[in-house]
Amino acid sequence: MRILMLNPNTTVPMTEQMVATARGFANPGTEIVGMNGHRGVPFVASRAEAAIAAAVILERLAELAEPFDAAVIAAFGDPGLGAAREMVDFPVVGLAEASMHAACMLGRRFSIVTFNHSLGPWYRECVEMHGMLDRLASIRVARGGVASINSIKDDKEAELFALATAAIEEDGADVLLFGGGPLAGLAGKLRDQIDVPVVEGVAAAVLQAEMLARLKTRRPVKGTYRKPPGKSSTGLTPALAALLASGPAS
Amino acid sequence: MRILMLNPNTTVPMTEQMVATARGFANPGTEIVGMNGHRGVPFVASRAEAAIAAAVILERLAELAEPFDAAVIAAFGDPGLGAAREMVDFPVVGLAEASMHAACMLGRRFSIVTFNHSLGPWYRECVEMHGMLDRLASIRVARGGVASINSIKDDKEAELFALATAAIEEDGADVLLFGGGPLAGLAGKLRDQIDVPVVEGVAAAVLQAEMLARLKTRRPVKGTYRKPPGKSSTGLTPALAALLASGPAS
Amino acid sequence: MRILMLNPNTTVPMTEQMVATARGFANPGTEIVGMNGHRGVPFVASRAEAAIAAAVILERLAELAEPFDAAVIAAFGDPGLGAAREMVDFPVVGLAEASMHAACMLGRRFSIVTFNHSLGPWYRECVEMHGMLDRLASIRVARGGVASINSIKDDKEAELFALATAAIEEDGADVLLFGGGPLAGLAGKLRDQIDVPVVEGVAAAVLQAEMLARLKTRRPVKGTYRKPPGKSSTGLTPALAALLASGPAS
Amino acid sequence: MRILMLNPNTTVPMTEQMVATARGFANPGTEIVGMNGHRGVPFVASRAEAAIAAAVILERLAELAEPFDAAVIAAFGDPGLGAAREMVDFPVVGLAEASMHAACMLGRRFSIVTFNHSLGPWYRECVEMHGMLDRLASIRVARGGVASINSIKDDKEAELFALATAAIEEDGADVLLFGGGPLAGLAGKLRDQIDVPVVEGVAAAVLQAEMLARLKTRRPVKGTYRKPPGKSSTGLTPALAALLASGPAS
Amino acid sequence: MRILMLNPNTTVPMTEQMVATARGFANPGTEIVGMNGHRGVPFVASRAEAAIAAAVILERLAELAEPFDAAVIAAFGDPGLGAAREMVDFPVVGLAEASMHAACMLGRRFSIVTFNHSLGPWYRECVEMHGMLDRLASIRVARGGVASINSIKDDKEAELFALATAAIEEDGADVLLFGGGPLAGLAGKLRDQIDVPVVEGVAAAVLQAEMLARLKTRRPVKGTYRKPPGKSSTGLTPALAALLASGPAS
Amino acid sequence: MRILMLNPNTTVPMTEQMVATARGFANPGTEIVGMNGHRGVPFVASRAEAAIAAAVILERLAELAEPFDAAVIAAFGDPGLGAAREMVDFPVVGLAEASMHAACMLGRRFSIVTFNHSLGPWYRECVEMHGMLDRLASIRVARGGVASINSIKDDKEAELFALATAAIEEDGADVLLFGGGPLAGLAGKLRDQIDVPVVEGVAAAVLQAEMLARLKTRRPVKGTYRKPPGKSSTGLTPALAALLASGPAS
Repeated sequence: MRILMLNPNTTVPMTEQMVATARGFANPGTEIVGMNGHRGVPFVASRAEAAIAAAVILERLAELAEPFDAAVIAAFGDPGLGAAREMVDFPVVGLAEASMHAACMLGRRFSIVTFNHSLGPWYRECVEMHGMLDRLASIRVARGGVASINSIKDDKEAELFALATAAIEEDGADVLLFGGGPLAGLAGKLRDQIDVPVVEGVAAAVLQAEMLARLKTRRPVKGTYRKPPGKSSTGLTPALAALLASGPAS
Repeated sequence: MRILMLNPNTTVPMTEQMVATARGFANPGTEIVGMNGHRGVPFVASRAEAAIAAAVILERLAELAEPFDAAVIAAFGDPGLGAAREMVDFPVVGLAEASMHAACMLGRRFSIVTFNHSLGPWYRECVEMHGMLDRLASIRVARGGVASINSIKDDKEAELFALATAAIEEDGADVLLFGGGPLAGLAGKLRDQIDVPVVEGVAAAVLQAEMLARLKTRRPVKGTYRKPPGKSSTGLTPALAALLASGPAS
Repeated sequence: MRILMLNPNTTVPMTEQMVATARGFANPGTEIVGMNGHRGVPFVASRAEAAIAAAVILERLAELAEPFDAAVIAAFGDPGLGAAREMVDFPVVGLAEASMHAACMLGRRFSIVTFNHSLGPWYRECVEMHGMLDRLASIRVARGGVASINSIKDDKEAELFALATAAIEEDGADVLLFGGGPLAGLAGKLRDQIDVPVVEGVAAAVLQAEMLARLKTRRPVKGTYRKPPGKSSTGLTPALAALLASGPAS
Repeated sequence: MRILMLNPNTTVPMTEQMVATARGFANPGTEIVGMNGHRGVPFVASRAEAAIAAAVILERLAELAEPFDAAVIAAFGDPGLGAAREMVDFPVVGLAEASMHAACMLGRRFSIVTFNHSLGPWYRECVEMHGMLDRLASIRVARGGVASINSIKDDKEAELFALATAAIEEDGADVLLFGGGPLAGLAGKLRDQIDVPVVEGVAAAVLQAEMLARLKTRRPVKGTYRKPPGKSSTGLTPALAALLASGPAS
Repeated sequence: MRILMLNPNTTVPMTEQMVATARGFANPGTEIVGMNGHRGVPFVASRAEAAIAAAVILERLAELAEPFDAAVIAAFGDPGLGAAREMVDFPVVGLAEASMHAACMLGRRFSIVTFNHSLGPWYRECVEMHGMLDRLASIRVARGGVASINSIKDDKEAELFALATAAIEEDGADVLLFGGGPLAGLAGKLRDQIDVPVVEGVAAAVLQAEMLARLKTRRPVKGTYRKPPGKSSTGLTPALAALLASGPAS
Repeated sequence: MRILMLNPNTTVPMTEQMVATARGFANPGTEIVGMNGHRGVPFVASRAEAAIAAAVILERLAELAEPFDAAVIAAFGDPGLGAAREMVDFPVVGLAEASMHAACMLGRRFSIVTFNHSLGPWYRECVEMHGMLDRLASIRVARGGVASINSIKDDKEAELFALATAAIEEDGADVLLFGGGPLAGLAGKLRDQIDVPVVEGVAAAVLQAEMLARLKTRRPVKGTYRKPPGKSSTGLTPALAALLASGPAS
């Protein structure tokens, strides 16, 4: 099985870290193909950056030479998730979405711990989008800025651990999620020191993508994610224009 | 007061129709400036198209030579609304959002009547995004395809009227919204034949934008819509790259 | 345009303060007519007082010599709002309702800061009535009693400012509302010191009333706010009895 | 035990019918004292009429020569319920509220069947006020007008029975409520022909009032229903003015 | 009237305490019959123990020689409540459910104070099951272990009182519930020292059971709690097997 | 990897059908071990039967000679799910839960189609328990009785297909679930004739169980599903008594 891990960020080491982490959890025989945004920002951390990321995701999906069995949107706020679902013939899952659905089967309420202040409200909106607000114990965010997106996981480890503990003790979290692609791998490192299950997001995402691929469901021709009718456009990449123009298979 | 009516669709007559309709409702002295997507699709009717529209909106906002007093995202699903709010220094409202908030002050529950099947679930997601699901009586959608986006309002008038009546009689709608920019002007035409208030969406949007401008609230430096820190990027339009790089005013 | 600002409280200086504040925000050419409760209490701060206020509002509306373009119920808990909507032919908005709908277009979650302990739970019930609980970050209330309703705004300014700051820092408020007619004008005074937008309630209410009037919607003859059938009564003021007896226009 | 059944309507036979029905269900030794609105309308069926009723209820409660063990607001939309709770020293329950809480212990979802079109949306608002929307299967309303409020129960019996059946078969109702004081007694008459439990509203109200009285809870001095501070007023009945002025017991 | 108080725990003194407490509140002439789990654990405090308790409840109900007028599931998480409702011909209420419905008529939001850490999340799930999450101010739990289930009420009285006070002052509780059968009687002891109404759970349960019995509703033959069709089984107690096999009365 | 598929029903062919179906979807190398209720009913279809099933599940889990990597509660209403989670050291998922979480990643709203009237409300309660009510489009139930649980899938195929179509066309379902173990395999048979994705429940359950096992989360020592303290008991099976007595690993 081939899974596309599509990180709309332009930071290649982050994608490599995510792919490496995911490979440690995926089923044998699953090939994970990392792909970065070819344009955009190093790390999406706002709605504006997510809007650009969503367009980037569509451009990248339009350029695929051959289909995958499933794809992961490898950014925690799930930019472009619904858009991607409309346009491709294989299942697509978001990193946040996949983590939260896994968390719901491990506890009643989860907390999200992340490293950057602007991520808090955007992640909350993502929780709302997936109808998970009643399952959210809290979102806790580390203070201060981000010196390097590639080392943030190590730079803030102690603070993130403290926030995880506070989420359990004070907010009643039954499950912990570390939110944000740059924290890939942290769950495995801290799992034995944290008193509740910690879901490694990229692992959850790849495994949920595998699950959906194995369910062998058909491409919808009705309902919310069916492919929209073909449409002309101007000023888009040729591949994306062609994808939009293609319409549903007849 | 100058209000930007930013229609991410590329169809210029649709924007002209919306601007003309809005001018019939706006306060004296308000200047409404229409602007179209410089690239994209003629009419956004899916999440994929909305994702492209959101990026287009950011590109257009980045190119503004001078600020407006407020802006309207003139597409019913409110693409790019949160992203726009983060990036500009004046208030921004969405067409759907503005219509729904107005409707809530005219009745307990509203119905949305629209003309294209793929719009139904996307509009529902928009209602959810704004936390309005408990205020929604129903979404009703006309059957069949769209021959011409510019004449759809006339082509389907009888069916849209019948759907409005059914929403009142069967779904308990207290207020009616005609959803979708191409229906601008229909509310005024049918208002006397429909037994409950009908909100003209573009009118609501411009008037809500005026209201927010008149409230003279400050640009947030905390909270969900504060401007994110400046960030480098690659492959974006120069203006958008500059806007993302600018960060909050110090 | 003529807007009625109907304050069910009997304190005339409070109404004058609200009208003066509102005039600073309203559109040119809008005339704001203040009116007080002719009986009742100096400041409504409980459900019992609000029940009396609702009856007072109906009595005052019944006595109007000529219609307005729209009316504002100028008390933060919106007493008698639905009742007024049923009985008059022009749009009516509540002070709390108008503020909250404006706040929803400026942030995801708002906090209400107010000055009197008994207002807290009543305002929360008002937030619930308008279906806004998911948009509420917190309600924060100053300690201690109220020496003078006319000077409360100045007497407690420092404490109210501190509560606003706490709402932003600890509760995640994106927008601030100062709840209660006696705080009219405070938003303008503190806006530059508070890190998120502050909605001036009476301004929002008058501007929303203007908006609804400009939408030129028809009087509903179906749905929740249509005028009830004419009904006989005993013991009411002659004007209110006549209004109840009148029934819908045929 | 003495229970006040306070019907804010002015129709004395309706109160007599409700009291008689309730007596058939109350515990031995419970005395039920009926009381009507001394002013107002024959039958409250809108928010405006309910606002008047709420004031009437306060006036009547203020005139009580001696306390009761508990009181019932004997109108289905529960006008003045919170206001009454603030002002008197004994428990108060609403007719709708009591019925719905009883229904929740007999099934998962209930339907309300009533006789007058304008009652539907107002009752729905009452269901929302009590946080019961997720327990509501439907509200079904008989067509046509009301010839006589005293004979409505008999005049529309066949239609109300048909609506009850439809609520069970089509809406999934597990429990039935006949909404509105004039339908007192109908539950007993039809109970054996309806396939799910039917809650007799006035019986539920009196029994819940008895229950609350027997719980011997104290008058709150904190929280939402504590008595507000004493307040001066103008233009109210002397008894109500005195009650408002009295403030909490020290 | 005869009410069964069915405590699925095996601790006989706890049941005696509950019955004695309930008798102090019940109507004259009501006979309360206590019954314990014939197998199971001394005090149910987890979902696993509740699952066993639910089966025990069915076994005990199947063995009843004659019907009661109503029954109480006398364990705060309401184990087996829906199951019991399906199988017997008289009303059944849960201890938690009855307390919460009573609390909703005494305030807007209630807090539950209990003595054992594992009870917190299970009680929260019970609140969710009854659709009461919006009415819940907080659940507060005493620290430390349980030395003796029979003396826990006295051993932790000071801490429970402190938690009740904190729930009022910090969480905005309008009503207090002491959760858990072993706390029967505590409400009466502390009521005068706590600033809001305190609902004695076993009293609420017995009184609600009486109320339902007095409503004389019929056994449902449709809807969620109708008796399921007769079914064969293996390995159950003879009485329970017979009850399952019996099916609805024809 | 070894997955326990624990069907609390006593019908062995049903379990065989479920295991066979699941094997067609599981990852290579996954061993699926079917296990039936050793006592109970042939097919759980009510809350009472589910309560018995929950106890049976605990008894079976207590008897396991060696741990599994994960377990599936193979009955659609998820009886005993939380109880099982507390007591065993490996992840446990419910058939309904797993199906619904998968469905949420394939569409916005799902419908459940099932074959027996009493299943409808119980399944709805299960949807509520998992906080999925906003994602539920409808539950549709075939008419008539069940001649044979083993052939029900074939006997009612045409009707179930018609209900699936109606759920898509009339209720807006984006995804379809066939609810109930006896329908295992039906999704695969009908998938090409149904216009939206159909989730094969047992496949989703086994794949979600695999996913949770691969996430390698730790056993919680805090939060809602931590193992409760050891407790004495009477009258339980020796293995279950020992499990309850064991308490958390120190």
